[in-house]
Amino acid sequence: MKELTIHSNKREEFIILDQKLQSFIDESNVQDGVLTIFVPHTTAAVTINENADPDVTRDIINHLGKMVPHHAGFSHSEGNSDAHIKSSLLGPSLQCLVSDGRLVFGTWQSVYFCEFDGPRSRKIFLKLVEEK
Amino acid sequence: MKELTIHSNKREEFIILDQKLQSFIDESNVQDGVLTIFVPHTTAAVTINENADPDVTRDIINHLGKMVPHHAGFSHSEGNSDAHIKSSLLGPSLQCLVSDGRLVFGTWQSVYFCEFDGPRSRKIFLKLVEEK
Amino acid sequence: MKELTIHSNKREEFIILDQKLQSFIDESNVQDGVLTIFVPHTTAAVTINENADPDVTRDIINHLGKMVPHHAGFSHSEGNSDAHIKSSLLGPSLQCLVSDGRLVFGTWQSVYFCEFDGPRSRKIFLKLVEEK
Repeated sequence: MKELTIHSNKREEFIILDQKLQSFIDESNVQDGVLTIFVPHTTAAVTINENADPDVTRDIINHLGKMVPHHAGFSHSEGNSDAHIKSSLLGPSLQCLVSDGRLVFGTWQSVYFCEFDGPRSRKIFLKLVEEK
Repeated sequence: MKELTIHSNKREEFIILDQKLQSFIDESNVQDGVLTIFVPHTTAAVTINENADPDVTRDIINHLGKMVPHHAGFSHSEGNSDAHIKSSLLGPSLQCLVSDGRLVFGTWQSVYFCEFDGPRSRKIFLKLVEEK
Repeated sequence: MKELTIHSNKREEFIILDQKLQSFIDESNVQDGVLTIFVPHTTAAVTINENADPDVTRDIINHLGKMVPHHAGFSHSEGNSDAHIKSSLLGPSLQCLVSDGRLVFGTWQSVYFCEFDGPRSRKIFLKLVEEK
């Protein structure tokens, strides 16, 4: 298992992980398998979406904020229930395919760490299971 | 593959699975790998979120009920379309990492079975794939 | 890794994948493992939900359209930000269990490719990791 550390700079921010993921695959020497990305936090998530136009991730962050406002009469006293809800909506874990030693993506896809309660230092855990 | 049975007590309820998952890992004797949790139901889901303050899961359940009201002019005649929608939003399947024979969690994380149309008896399927 | 091609016929449409997935498992000769379904697109997704009453998937599509309207003041100029958001909400990747050479489903479950910006030709990638 590999542990990455990343730093978010805003309360809500999507950070591309592709290069860090590919470096881990390169180090592991695995040619074919499934990479699991696991976020060990309850106010963050991991997703895949478009990397060409940064307006796409801005639209995602803004619209999630309409669906789950920062303050909406929540009970949890820390004031970050919106971030907990978004974490479960996008999910803390994601699987990517590895073929011929490369992450398999569609043309416009990148993997994003989704910060919903930053800025903070965050961890990401990676595990690569080889295909027989 | 292991099959668990759990019982929900309300229409909507989040039930912590951590101990049952760890017991399965202990029995399997696998030290490193990826655990897949699969919910074979279309009105339930599985997620990870905070276990310290029960207000967090209450806020999640309540806010999902605002996003997807129980009755919102749905076509499906069984009156549980909200539960089907929430099942797809949170997802029926989740992957957790296993390292040194232990589930790898962040400090505040627990795995929750998410009941959206209880009370019922429910199944959960588990499979552990060992890392080479 | 296997690559499937499917064709959607509407802007928004859920297409059952079960038979194509089972055929891939049959060809692979794997009896026990985990199947990863990966959608290499940023305006589509994959989910599991009910297959008995087609009103269920209609309700899901319609309600997602209320949660994320087609036009809601988005910045991305291609006019499909709603599809990108729904892709992240339902997710581009899903894991199913394989036991005795069969996909393990609940009674009412099917796997759906979720088209949110069709009609188009689309790819789906499959990888099966055998359980030791």
